[in-house]
This record gives sequence, structure tokens and C-alpha cells, in this order.
Amino acid sequence: MDVRAAVAFEAGKPLEIETIQLEGPREGEVLVEIKATGLCHTDKYTLSGADPEGLFPAILGHEGAGVVVEVGPGVTSLKAGDHVIPLYTPECRNCKSCLSRKTNLCTRIRATQGRGVMPDGSSRFSYKGQPILHYMGCSTFANYTVLPEIALAKVREDAPFDKICYIGCGVTTGIGAVLFTAKVEPGSSVVVFGLGGIGLNVIQGARMVGATQIVGVDINPGREAMARQFGMTDFVNPKDLGENGDVVGHLVELTGGGADYSFECVGNPTLMRQALECSHRGWGVSTIIGVASAGQEISTRPFQLVTGRRWIGSAFGGARGRTDVPKIVEWYMDGKISIDPLITHHLKLEQINEGFDLMTRGESIRSVVMY
Amino acid sequence: MDVRAAVAFEAGKPLEIETIQLEGPREGEVLVEIKATGLCHTDKYTLSGADPEGLFPAILGHEGAGVVVEVGPGVTSLKAGDHVIPLYTPECRNCKSCLSRKTNLCTRIRATQGRGVMPDGSSRFSYKGQPILHYMGCSTFANYTVLPEIALAKVREDAPFDKICYIGCGVTTGIGAVLFTAKVEPGSSVVVFGLGGIGLNVIQGARMVGATQIVGVDINPGREAMARQFGMTDFVNPKDLGENGDVVGHLVELTGGGADYSFECVGNPTLMRQALECSHRGWGVSTIIGVASAGQEISTRPFQLVTGRRWIGSAFGGARGRTDVPKIVEWYMDGKISIDPLITHHLKLEQINEGFDLMTRGESIRSVVMY
Repeated sequence: MDVRAAVAFEAGKPLEIETIQLEGPREGEVLVEIKATGLCHTDKYTLSGADPEGLFPAILGHEGAGVVVEVGPGVTSLKAGDHVIPLYTPECRNCKSCLSRKTNLCTRIRATQGRGVMPDGSSRFSYKGQPILHYMGCSTFANYTVLPEIALAKVREDAPFDKICYIGCGVTTGIGAVLFTAKVEPGSSVVVFGLGGIGLNVIQGARMVGATQIVGVDINPGREAMARQFGMTDFVNPKDLGENGDVVGHLVELTGGGADYSFECVGNPTLMRQALECSHRGWGVSTIIGVASAGQEISTRPFQLVTGRRWIGSAFGGARGRTDVPKIVEWYMDGKISIDPLITHHLKLEQINEGFDLMTRGESIRSVVMY
Repeated sequence: MDVRAAVAFEAGKPLEIETIQLEGPREGEVLVEIKATGLCHTDKYTLSGADPEGLFPAILGHEGAGVVVEVGPGVTSLKAGDHVIPLYTPECRNCKSCLSRKTNLCTRIRATQGRGVMPDGSSRFSYKGQPILHYMGCSTFANYTVLPEIALAKVREDAPFDKICYIGCGVTTGIGAVLFTAKVEPGSSVVVFGLGGIGLNVIQGARMVGATQIVGVDINPGREAMARQFGMTDFVNPKDLGENGDVVGHLVELTGGGADYSFECVGNPTLMRQALECSHRGWGVSTIIGVASAGQEISTRPFQLVTGRRWIGSAFGGARGRTDVPKIVEWYMDGKISIDPLITHHLKLEQINEGFDLMTRGESIRSVVMY
């Protein structure tokens, strides 16, 4: 079938809107009509060419929501008409990882997903007879896409696509890191580095679980108002501390000895170290969410760990996609969490490159393309 | 009163056996006759002058066992005749740390202990009228010493001093890291870097909790036999892998994907990194036990953490001294853990410098001074 897509033909070039071809679902696969997709920094990172694992040509996009159109042979958990969120972290419930009870990082289709193909090793997309690769197992920058059954979360049908698409990545990454990875308890003190789309979701996750003090750290004072709306209790702008300002010392003092939990949502190794070191001696847990550039390293004195701080990381918020994503949709529909103010721009597919420009200029939190 | 002690008059010099003066216990303090003390690498590190926090002149030693002689005013939990193990990590049960339920690092007397004095700010030791400092709150290189009540674990009276003194540091540090810090579960795979006194105790801790695979890593093949006796199932000598051998890759393969738990017991940042990176994607927990030299740093790619590995540390095995040390003595007396083969040398106080020479040459696991 013909589908409309924003195609990444090569690194460093804008996406091109084209009509391309999509094959129907094979065994264990599902054809989904994408109704809305968010634009995420990870798409931009890959498109830029800086991602060493980026492959081209490809259909990017991994933060979508849509409706099942057709299921392939053997698919039992989904049927036409179901509302779904694509999962770049699938949940097969049968691999060593899924059965470990310790991680959400299902490994069932990791190898093929990393190569931009479906589990059988082939692509469903093509253009002028040449295959176009899938991306993160999702490819939501097309109005129809094919995914494995295990990479789709079935969600309630009254939830608006243009909001819940964000649960496919940013919302879950932030809230999940608080709930599923760090397991923040009521009464905790929390420090969040970076008040963009992820950081704001960390903040509302911390508020949801009853954190007492939620400190946001950002060099952009324009982030403060929205962050307070999401639950931030204290704002720290490192630039206000002067050029040689002791950010760590300031945060330790502000939290009365260090944060019970800290989160890095930027992808900057210097901030990752500060996040660790501002956490409390004896029990501080510091969670890395941001993705650093290829080759960058984190470091600290081992004494920081020996005296009880824990350095951990979170991918997709530690959420098991098929199990937890539908719950997060419920929380949104029940008003436990907020998404609407984070969707700052609605775009048509033809405007998708403008969406990335907004991101580059820091003018958007989330831009969503509506098909 | 006069006591016999090995005095560290200055950094880099051998200990000197002298008769020095000890004041009796003040409010909340206890006079203990030390019956046996182990010699630990930490004593040697401080004596060498490399420890930036080392203070002189001082009575070193922190791994002892003895008998209460006299209690000061207000002491309620101990009486003359009680058998005790001194605790360099006290347990007041009332400070923010003790009440956190998350750490063993009691902060009640940390400041004064770090300055080499009792909680009231003064020393009980003197020589020719000049004060001699305490060390790690213990000073077991004297046949009598004074400690705060909160820094003494009361233990059963039929346990031999020359064995249970080792529970005052090495045994608890190793076994505790497995049980209390990492919380290794039955069936786990475990990798242990460094098969000295700490590493062997990590191994027997892992065996005690039912780990299935226990891999020991050491460049000294002479360590293999004892480690197997303590429960090691696989031995890896990095030197056997060749000069450019991939230790991490080898360990990942040997453990079928990575260790569920790894422990660094050497104090070498390169090994700390290897220990982290050989742990399993998704859930591997790597615990730093070894103490690195001042100024050294650990590093890794943040991707290691984002994909689910956890980097943590352990001090005194995460054990709450007054609560857990008596239990470990029970485990020893019940035969659940082994200590006897680790006590390779018994020395008189006059031979204490020979004990450190044995340690330097790698000929001892633990030397114990019997008073």
C-alpha cells in the first residue's frame, strides 16, 4: 500500500515528504495507522548523523499513537480497531530479560531492531523498489507502519492520540524513571538536572509519588514557570551561582545534606557527576536518563559510591511497555499526570522539519505531528 | 593506667612498642581489654603516609576483639566481662543515618572520630604527657583501649578472640557486601576481583546465600586453591588472557551474558570499571569494596548504566555493627562461614612490624596479634 512518510534519506539532510510503499503484516506483525507522533531529541540526534548506530535511508519517529488496521497470522493480543502505542522497547514476556523481573530491556528482537529491520530480517518499507529501513522498531514518521505484536501497547480508546503519543517516549521515560527505576518514596527530596520534556516528567512523577522537595536545575530561567506548574518546589540556575559556583555544595545545602534521589535529563557527563555527588551520603540514588554523545564518559571518585551513593540509569523509564504504558495512559485520563501543557506545537507532516527547528531553538517542549 | 601499645609516631616509620598511658572511660565510654587484633591494609595505608586523613602520633588498629573492663557513667548496654568487638562504624540507632533504614554509616561521632579523638574532643591516650590520637575510633594496637558504647558490638563469650577479631573488619566487609549491600540472591552468578582477605570473604558470602557461579579474578595463581576452598567455582587469571586480553569479554562469556553481581576488592579503578562492565546488561549490580588511593577516579560510558547496570559501593559490608556483627559471630560459631584458614599468622605485639612485612610480600591473608 502507499503511505505518506517523512523520509530520512541521508544523515544531516532535512526529512523529505514522500509517498512510499508499505507491505502488509507478516506472521506476528501488526499494521497500524499512526494518528499522531511526537518529535524527540533522539530522532534529531540520529538524523544529524552523530548517532553511530544511525542507518539510512530510514523512516524515523518512535513516539506515536494509532489504531490497528490489520493483524498478521499468529497475532492474538490485538485486533483491528484497537488503539495502540508503538514501543521501541518491546515486552515479549518470555526472554531472559523479561523473565528476570529486574529489567524492562526485552532482548527478543534487539538484534534486528538495531539493524532497522523486522524480526524476520526484512523491511516492510520501500521507495522506488528499494528498501527503506525501520527505526527503533517504530517508524512513526509514516501514517501507516508495521510493528511486531510485542512492540505494541493496547490502550483505552477514549484517550486523545495527540497527547498519548508522548507516552510512547518522553512521558514514560521521565515518570517511569521515578516510579520504576529509582522507586522514589513519599517524603523524598529530589533534584532534577534539565527541565526539558524529560525533566518536567520526572518532576511530575516525583510529585505523583509524594516527594516533599523537588529541586529543578537549569541554566534557562524560562523553564522555571512550567516546572513549578508541574511540581518543582525550588529552582536553581547554576549561572546565578557565579562562574566558579559550587553547584553540588549548593544543592547539598538546599536539600539538607543531599538529595535522596537525583536525575540527569540532559545527557551531559559533567551534570551526571554533579547529580551523583549532590545525592545524599549513605543512600542517595542518582539516575542517568539523558543520552550522552558517543564516546563520552562519566567519572567520579569511588569514595562517592563507597560512602553509599548509587549510580544507576534508566531507559524508557524502566517501564515494561505492554504492562505499564496502558497504566500511564490511565493516569493521564484520570488527571494524575498532566500532558497537555507539554504539547506546545501541533504540526502537519509537511511541517515536520519546522518542528525540529523549534526543538533546536528551544522554543518547543513537544511538537506533535497529526496525520 | 599503663598499657602496652604499638605506637605510630610518624608516617612512614615502623611502629614502636611502648608503654603509654590510658585514661579511664568517661560518660558513655567503655574500657576494653583487647585480646587480639588483626592487621589490615588500611592500617598499613595510613602508616605509610599515603592516607591524606592520617594523623600522628596515633595508636592504629581497628580489627580487634576483647573484654569489657569498666564502663563509664550512662553506659547501659554493656557491663564488665562482656565480650566485644570494636566498631569503626558505630551504630547509635538515633542519628539521621541510623534512622534512614538505608545505610549503616552512622554519623553520630563521625567528626570527632575523623580527628582522632573521643566524642568529647579529647584523647584518652598519652605518652610522656603528650596526647596520642585514637584511630578509626578503635586503636586496637594497644592491649587496653577506650571506646564509645555505640562503637562496641557485644558478642557471645565462647567465640575465640583470635578468630572473631577478623569480624571487626575483613570478614564483615566481604560477607556484608554480599548480604547487606548487594543483596545477592540464590542462583546468582558472581564475579569477584581480588582474592585477598576481602575477596575470599565475598566468595564465602556468595556461597552462603546460594550463588550458583562464583568467579574469582586475580593475577596471583597462588590464590586459586584457597578461593576454591571458600566456594569459588571458576578462576580467571587476566595474565593468562595475554597482554591485550579482553577480561570483560571473557567474563561476560563465562557467565553467560554477564555477572548478576560483581565485586571489586582491590582498590584499583581499572578493575572497578571492569567489574561494572562485566556485569549483566539490564540488572548487573557492581559493588566497589576496595579503597582507591587518594585522587583516583573511576569512569565508564554512561550507556553502561542507562542499559541497566548499577554501580554501588560498600563500607563495612553495609553492616550495622551492633546489630549484625553479633550475628556474623554466630554464623562463624555455627560453621556457616569459615575464618580459621584465613588467619595465617599469629604474632606477639613485638612482632607487629613483621606482620606488615608479611602483608607487603603477599605471604599472609590475615596476621593476628595476640596480647
